[in-house]
Amino acid sequence: VSDPAKTAGIVVIGDEILSGKFADENAKFLIGELRELGVALRRVAIIPDVPADIADTVRSFSERFDLVFTSGGVGPTHDDLTIEGIALAFGAGVVVEPVLEKVLRDYWGEAMPEANLRLAQTPRGAELVYGGSGRAAVWPVVKYRNIYILPGVPKLFRAKFDGIKERFRGDALFEARIYLAGDEGELAPELAAVDAEYPTVQIGSYPRFEETRFKVIVTLESDDQAALNGASAALRQRLKDKIVDLG
Amino acid sequence: VSDPAKTAGIVVIGDEILSGKFADENAKFLIGELRELGVALRRVAIIPDVPADIADTVRSFSERFDLVFTSGGVGPTHDDLTIEGIALAFGAGVVVEPVLEKVLRDYWGEAMPEANLRLAQTPRGAELVYGGSGRAAVWPVVKYRNIYILPGVPKLFRAKFDGIKERFRGDALFEARIYLAGDEGELAPELAAVDAEYPTVQIGSYPRFEETRFKVIVTLESDDQAALNGASAALRQRLKDKIVDLG
Repeated sequence: VSDPAKTAGIVVIGDEILSGKFADENAKFLIGELRELGVALRRVAIIPDVPADIADTVRSFSERFDLVFTSGGVGPTHDDLTIEGIALAFGAGVVVEPVLEKVLRDYWGEAMPEANLRLAQTPRGAELVYGGSGRAAVWPVVKYRNIYILPGVPKLFRAKFDGIKERFRGDALFEARIYLAGDEGELAPELAAVDAEYPTVQIGSYPRFEETRFKVIVTLESDDQAALNGASAALRQRLKDKIVDLG
Repeated sequence: VSDPAKTAGIVVIGDEILSGKFADENAKFLIGELRELGVALRRVAIIPDVPADIADTVRSFSERFDLVFTSGGVGPTHDDLTIEGIALAFGAGVVVEPVLEKVLRDYWGEAMPEANLRLAQTPRGAELVYGGSGRAAVWPVVKYRNIYILPGVPKLFRAKFDGIKERFRGDALFEARIYLAGDEGELAPELAAVDAEYPTVQIGSYPRFEETRFKVIVTLESDDQAALNGASAALRQRLKDKIVDLG
């Protein structure tokens, strides 16, 4: 059996997502990435641009999970409050990070608007994490404790995460699916029995009323291949009359 | 000025969403619906199928927001733990609701699997909310305190929400957008000034690096039409050299 997977939480900071002005793209993207990397995502929160809310949420996530990713609220305008919120969470000050300031001034030259200095702010004690190529290699990700602070603009969010993602790679989970013709109520005792017998296998049951060929999708997931195979075989035996082969 | 908008929170209960096995459809749908209804969504949480997590989250949301909507974790199988979690949150017992039991038995007849009785369970003291047509009119939504308990299957989630949604309708928000050619750093002082001058208007600034015609979308939103018009005019005056007419 492999080491337990790293756990993670995602905090999307954005009034614009909650109000429906823009659809979330970053949590959706990151859920898929974390699955592929073998990181166990435990919670997603979409919260407003309010420092106290940001502080409460990132502190709680930072304590509970190995990795925290924030999306949004970093930029030069009045509604960019993520750095302030994270600093507040841990009683840290906000400082202008000298390396980031130099990158900014090199890029903008004399014409840099004063407000852009906010892009060099970090909670005191943050680290800079480099990775990727192009601008991602020049412009690092700010990490504070176990919190990776990423921008809300989807294109930048993806580029910055792509640059650093290999550091998070763990063992991929093993998975299996069984498609069944029975109603969930009929399957429930068999699922519960196998779930109890194989505690290291997560078994989920999802009815799909719009399908004609099957009525329920059962998923099995584990970091233990032998346990997964055992649970899958046990379920197939118990439910053999109801299995649909989608070929 | 109209009454303040009702506030809301969404709790999506589902290991299958966190693990990336299925994409969230219900929070996405509900964000759009709440916007159209004039309800102010304050927070979304996606959490695992764990009663203690469900309990903590729904209790916190129930205290903080006028309306709470849960998605998922209601059904006959071992991974359906939402009713148990909500009951735990408030120290209520779980009971078989007689009206729901009758609907179930009428539908299934003698062939009803025993596990399906779980579909009639509610936290003790829950209300039944009827609305819509067809099966939605027969099969009510379970409401406990200010929490509306909805199923995770997207087709059913939509049908049940559609059936009850008019009870949530408030005053629509007024909104405006301005597209700008400047960088966010240049706009920041002007945005901050107007934001401070119009506290009832929410002003957001969103850079879009993939666009060629403009660089920043500024959004204004308020339940006060006069304030919105004032803030919009003030911003247009201050930023007139940078406005892009997408006409």
